[in-house]
Amino acid sequence: MSDLFWPGDERAGALFADSALLEGMVALEAAWSAGLVAHGLAPRGVAVSADELLELLDGSDVARITLDAEGGGNPVIPLVSTLRNRLVEAGREETAQWLHQGLSSQDVVDTALMLCAGTALRRLEIELGTQAQALDALAGAHRGTVMVGRTLTQHAVPITFGLKASGWLAGVEDARASVAFAHSVLPAQVGGAAGTLAVTVELGRRRGLRDPEGVTLALARETAAALGLAPAAPWHTTRFPVTRVGDALATASSAMGRIAADVLTLARPEVAEVAEPVGTGRGGSSTIPQKQNPVLAVLVRRAAITAPGLASTLHTAAAFANDERPDGAWHAEWATLRDLARRTVVAAAHTSELVAGLQVDVVAMRERARGAGALLAERDAVRGLVDADGTGRDNAADGGDPSSYLGITDRIVQNRTRP
Amino acid sequence: MSDLFWPGDERAGALFADSALLEGMVALEAAWSAGLVAHGLAPRGVAVSADELLELLDGSDVARITLDAEGGGNPVIPLVSTLRNRLVEAGREETAQWLHQGLSSQDVVDTALMLCAGTALRRLEIELGTQAQALDALAGAHRGTVMVGRTLTQHAVPITFGLKASGWLAGVEDARASVAFAHSVLPAQVGGAAGTLAVTVELGRRRGLRDPEGVTLALARETAAALGLAPAAPWHTTRFPVTRVGDALATASSAMGRIAADVLTLARPEVAEVAEPVGTGRGGSSTIPQKQNPVLAVLVRRAAITAPGLASTLHTAAAFANDERPDGAWHAEWATLRDLARRTVVAAAHTSELVAGLQVDVVAMRERARGAGALLAERDAVRGLVDADGTGRDNAADGGDPSSYLGITDRIVQNRTRP
Amino acid sequence: MSDLFWPGDERAGALFADSALLEGMVALEAAWSAGLVAHGLAPRGVAVSADELLELLDGSDVARITLDAEGGGNPVIPLVSTLRNRLVEAGREETAQWLHQGLSSQDVVDTALMLCAGTALRRLEIELGTQAQALDALAGAHRGTVMVGRTLTQHAVPITFGLKASGWLAGVEDARASVAFAHSVLPAQVGGAAGTLAVTVELGRRRGLRDPEGVTLALARETAAALGLAPAAPWHTTRFPVTRVGDALATASSAMGRIAADVLTLARPEVAEVAEPVGTGRGGSSTIPQKQNPVLAVLVRRAAITAPGLASTLHTAAAFANDERPDGAWHAEWATLRDLARRTVVAAAHTSELVAGLQVDVVAMRERARGAGALLAERDAVRGLVDADGTGRDNAADGGDPSSYLGITDRIVQNRTRP
Amino acid sequence: MSDLFWPGDERAGALFADSALLEGMVALEAAWSAGLVAHGLAPRGVAVSADELLELLDGSDVARITLDAEGGGNPVIPLVSTLRNRLVEAGREETAQWLHQGLSSQDVVDTALMLCAGTALRRLEIELGTQAQALDALAGAHRGTVMVGRTLTQHAVPITFGLKASGWLAGVEDARASVAFAHSVLPAQVGGAAGTLAVTVELGRRRGLRDPEGVTLALARETAAALGLAPAAPWHTTRFPVTRVGDALATASSAMGRIAADVLTLARPEVAEVAEPVGTGRGGSSTIPQKQNPVLAVLVRRAAITAPGLASTLHTAAAFANDERPDGAWHAEWATLRDLARRTVVAAAHTSELVAGLQVDVVAMRERARGAGALLAERDAVRGLVDADGTGRDNAADGGDPSSYLGITDRIVQNRTRP
Repeated sequence: MSDLFWPGDERAGALFADSALLEGMVALEAAWSAGLVAHGLAPRGVAVSADELLELLDGSDVARITLDAEGGGNPVIPLVSTLRNRLVEAGREETAQWLHQGLSSQDVVDTALMLCAGTALRRLEIELGTQAQALDALAGAHRGTVMVGRTLTQHAVPITFGLKASGWLAGVEDARASVAFAHSVLPAQVGGAAGTLAVTVELGRRRGLRDPEGVTLALARETAAALGLAPAAPWHTTRFPVTRVGDALATASSAMGRIAADVLTLARPEVAEVAEPVGTGRGGSSTIPQKQNPVLAVLVRRAAITAPGLASTLHTAAAFANDERPDGAWHAEWATLRDLARRTVVAAAHTSELVAGLQVDVVAMRERARGAGALLAERDAVRGLVDADGTGRDNAADGGDPSSYLGITDRIVQNRTRP
Repeated sequence: MSDLFWPGDERAGALFADSALLEGMVALEAAWSAGLVAHGLAPRGVAVSADELLELLDGSDVARITLDAEGGGNPVIPLVSTLRNRLVEAGREETAQWLHQGLSSQDVVDTALMLCAGTALRRLEIELGTQAQALDALAGAHRGTVMVGRTLTQHAVPITFGLKASGWLAGVEDARASVAFAHSVLPAQVGGAAGTLAVTVELGRRRGLRDPEGVTLALARETAAALGLAPAAPWHTTRFPVTRVGDALATASSAMGRIAADVLTLARPEVAEVAEPVGTGRGGSSTIPQKQNPVLAVLVRRAAITAPGLASTLHTAAAFANDERPDGAWHAEWATLRDLARRTVVAAAHTSELVAGLQVDVVAMRERARGAGALLAERDAVRGLVDADGTGRDNAADGGDPSSYLGITDRIVQNRTRP
Repeated sequence: MSDLFWPGDERAGALFADSALLEGMVALEAAWSAGLVAHGLAPRGVAVSADELLELLDGSDVARITLDAEGGGNPVIPLVSTLRNRLVEAGREETAQWLHQGLSSQDVVDTALMLCAGTALRRLEIELGTQAQALDALAGAHRGTVMVGRTLTQHAVPITFGLKASGWLAGVEDARASVAFAHSVLPAQVGGAAGTLAVTVELGRRRGLRDPEGVTLALARETAAALGLAPAAPWHTTRFPVTRVGDALATASSAMGRIAADVLTLARPEVAEVAEPVGTGRGGSSTIPQKQNPVLAVLVRRAAITAPGLASTLHTAAAFANDERPDGAWHAEWATLRDLARRTVVAAAHTSELVAGLQVDVVAMRERARGAGALLAERDAVRGLVDADGTGRDNAADGGDPSSYLGITDRIVQNRTRP
Repeated sequence: MSDLFWPGDERAGALFADSALLEGMVALEAAWSAGLVAHGLAPRGVAVSADELLELLDGSDVARITLDAEGGGNPVIPLVSTLRNRLVEAGREETAQWLHQGLSSQDVVDTALMLCAGTALRRLEIELGTQAQALDALAGAHRGTVMVGRTLTQHAVPITFGLKASGWLAGVEDARASVAFAHSVLPAQVGGAAGTLAVTVELGRRRGLRDPEGVTLALARETAAALGLAPAAPWHTTRFPVTRVGDALATASSAMGRIAADVLTLARPEVAEVAEPVGTGRGGSSTIPQKQNPVLAVLVRRAAITAPGLASTLHTAAAFANDERPDGAWHAEWATLRDLARRTVVAAAHTSELVAGLQVDVVAMRERARGAGALLAERDAVRGLVDADGTGRDNAADGGDPSSYLGITDRIVQNRTRP
């Protein structure tokens, strides 16, 4: 996948691609069919693997499924119908009949969405982990790199670049924890037509099982486990699994957007305290030969601007998830979650590259800090206060040098996880 | 184009497709090159048409341009570079050199976005016009169709279905006017590297023109006209042209979403006063044979849930459009505008089909209105008030029949544009 | 009104204050009662003026109305009930009986909201007009003030500060036109319980009027006119009047936010090309004595960050405006519109002060432009191109001076409305 | 507090009131002053309690602080200045001098916001707990209450009302867990002017302490503990503490909004399966005597429509939290968080009342389920499938009765937390 309207989109690869959704949908059908057979609810021969199902479909099938999805409002109806036709053509009529028995369209799409989310969140965790390492190294390397601290855009007091990198890291770690948690609890959706799983119970009863309800619940749990997802009561209209992912993605997007905001300021030619890594074909202009744009930060900021609106749409959808299965709110989630996930992953790849190769001009930072006359005004004021007590000691040695003043930032950096 | 995550997406055809953006970008390059030549700023032979430029590109070029767009953050750098290479290969070295002279990346992308928007808005106007006709017919046909008026979900007083259709129509007409206005003022973007057009003036000066500034401004105006766009001062960071389109799209989306909301209520089996048109493969369920879902309304509501977040992102981007060309806010607009436009067009196609084929159960409406005992309570109260004056006349004839009560709705329907 | 959570809130005065909503509600009741009497629908003595009604209420009434508004979900029920009680106490029983006859709660609240919006939009127009004058003066005064043009944060080509001010002005003028249009079409809401006005028609019929429908429609029109609002068919669930105001406010907010974004960059100590006006107690810090923060721009940016989310809520509400009167979407609009309006007005007051007193350091701008070596790279490239033609003339005189290069910006500034 | 634009607002009491913010700000000043003294950084006599500080302020002080907050963009500057003046007037000059030493404005406001958030979240937890109890009781009481399951608005298969209540409960429990977690990690903000705490270290050094950095970090930790907040590295521009609260509030809002959506459908007169609790003055109409509106659900839906936009604003602000303290993004958070918190608490109070008093019409539910002919079509299809195997048993006894079919829902309800 790539997208002329979202440069860098290809960095998200097949995450949430149409093919990935299809694979996720087929994965649930296959896992469920295996479970039906394992519990004696369906005849022995009708289990079918995901690979078998995928091989039944060619490109034109997929194209037609996509078009036919409009008819019922979701892709499962044409998918199941096509798979059944192909199975019949392959002489597996019974398998065709038993496919999808007990499931609803929403089971299939929701589980596929969670599988797509799982892959995306795993990728995001890796990127955030990479960023955390790089930022930890930056924080360590620049423990003593004094620079101007800026508040409300103006010079305030001295900080170290290590402290700034440590702040960026704190945001990345917050995001990583959110993403990891959301990932760890991604549920499968197995509820049947209206969250009762009743048809499967009926199957069990008809088969003469002693505890058809217990078997059905076990089957739902095992299906989730087979897909690497968490078991869950049907959540057709309880959409926290979706908003939790959306909020984690928005959290990651903001954590990276904030780094981009700082880089965009510090890389301005008037400030020139950091620069983006220089890469082949990176940062060029269509008209001005030597210009070097901080394009990674620009692209990250782009994502951070669009993420909150997408995450909020998921909350709106959750609030309107009505009846036993929603009349539009559900359908609004799919592309929204996809776009939010892909863009956040792309932004993460950009941020990883940005922080790994960030060029820090230590000399420029120090000189600006030294030149900023009023930077120690706050310190001098408090010294005056203490000296007025008559208890102040003269620390003449550290006169104009802010670095002596910043030993604590080192401790803050070290303690950031256990403050 | 089609999208497994957004069933019905193919109804938007090539609107805002990658190919459409490419065509729009090339259209500006071509129109500008023709203008440069016409005004003697560039040598005679270097004008090149959009068709010529498009023919230079094959599929692999487009794929590579999309990938290389990441380097500079936008697709224009690799597009121009590829076109120049192809021109050189075709022996048109001078044309290659003169291509894009005086333009910026943002000129090219913004103009292409406006061209894409123009096609989308035109399509939307047609759909809204179709809807208006159908709704006008419904309003006329059901001037006397009494039904229950519902407020805060409860039965209130009688209305006519004609009045309801007329209200839907009013929203559609509001949207159509917004869309038509936004369409009529779509501007070209021609400003050069930072909105000064200075390089083009320099060309004119170097060519010895008497009024190089005047020629440059004329060239900008003529380029807009050649593309069917409005002339405008450079708007690289004045993004009303984008938010105005976004707001019009959101207005259309809400106007249609509100129709969908009513249909979803009235088509509930307990209400059963309207039904969606029945089409082949429309409204089916993956598990329940006879079920008929109001899928058009479901899909329209879906769009209405996502539109406001997208439109708001465009306002956020506008607020952060800084310096002479923005550092991320601009980049956030492209896919956002595309998604908002495509989805609104798809929703419009669905709404057109919905209102054109809407099945109105006149008998069910009347019977419910008759059965709703308290429906005339408000009337009776006011009658009592007048009669207490001693001036009330007995209109015994219209006793329990709400229809006599509703002559005015007819006038409201007729007068809706000149109330 | 003032708000510790929104410093500067008091600049919006009583706009959309509880008292303003109350006055607006009473204004409709009064205008309607006068109209009922004028058309002979109600007895002579029952007309009551807004002032009379307001005088009936004391502070404890208002407090109780606010609390009792929860019961029916809106303040009209307790307002009407309180007014009727007070009228009875004052011996005006008939007036009490006739108050509110023919109106719905939504008529009263919507009309009051539009009256509040009118006052807010008028104030906003004045502020935007003030800004336009100041920006026009800046644009004129700095036609020749060369500065660095920045794109994607980096130095690109020279511009003039006049051109930048002209771009700001263009955004303000866009916003002013949107606001003025929204203001000019603010409608009254007069529809009765479900948009049929049927009770009023019934009154007319009971009174023996020949054309009770015509009289009712005339009464609706005249009521709007008496309040300075536009007539309109009932729009209880057609919410364009609200989203149109919201979009205009968001447009204004973005136009001002973008100015703030530029000021925040240009006022950084490393850039120091502009400074905010210095006022008493303006821009101070709680800890650092000499620090001067660009607090006006900070507060304007604040508003620009919150406006898009509020405007999008109005579109969501419009999409869910169902039945004849909505079941929650309507109620979501009131505070949202108020907050959006007040904050935009406050931001406008801040922006007016900001642009009126903006300090422009012409020397700093010129020196930076001169020092930025590559700034003329684009020009030199195009010169080379022309000279390679053999047609280039030597304009030695304007060698390194960008100002000669910028004559056109003056024309762009002049032509901005007729480009 | 109450708000004519948000009926029911008074249910949030003083949560996030101006007075609560003031109390929170003063609480940090007091805790910090005590800590400075305890560690020997400030002279013995200068510690001052929150109560002492609050008593120094009268109403006119607060009004003036609110107005003067505009000057520096936040209320801390005028608050500290006023407190110092009052302390001097009270003869406590040294205390005045030492007040606020080492803190920044943002420390004070952020900590106060977190204290306000703590009170709001605690209240919300109580409400959600109340709802959970009521819903648990409903789920238990209606284990056997068969009703129609609705998907995409249409009748699908039978469910029990117990299952529906259990789904509502699941959402409430999700929200309660999110809120409880957000509450448990609310951090204090103690970072000084730019997150370095350097002035406090300097105090320690000047006092001759051996480990001034260690003392300062201990002081920060102890201050957090004294306020019942979590310790944290300075988070002036790492805004997860704010977005985490916002996301939890939006989650709660959506969970309750979804209940409201169901109630609004089921309470429609055509469905009439549930009704809101009847209370004095609840649900009335301004024009129609007997009408009973589901006003609690209406007000809850209102909140659910506005929450997502507010939560998204907090993410946007987080993404633009730049430098060491932000230039507007921070200021955008205060009122946004307040409005989101108050409205969610009000909605929670409404929802508690709604679910506690919900009237369930068991007979209506059963009869509709019995009358809906196709409701068992899915079961019949699967029976046919099994019987075709030759293994199906005849369960004649449960012929047309859906209740036999629903034993599993009981297990789903029981197992909902451990599925």
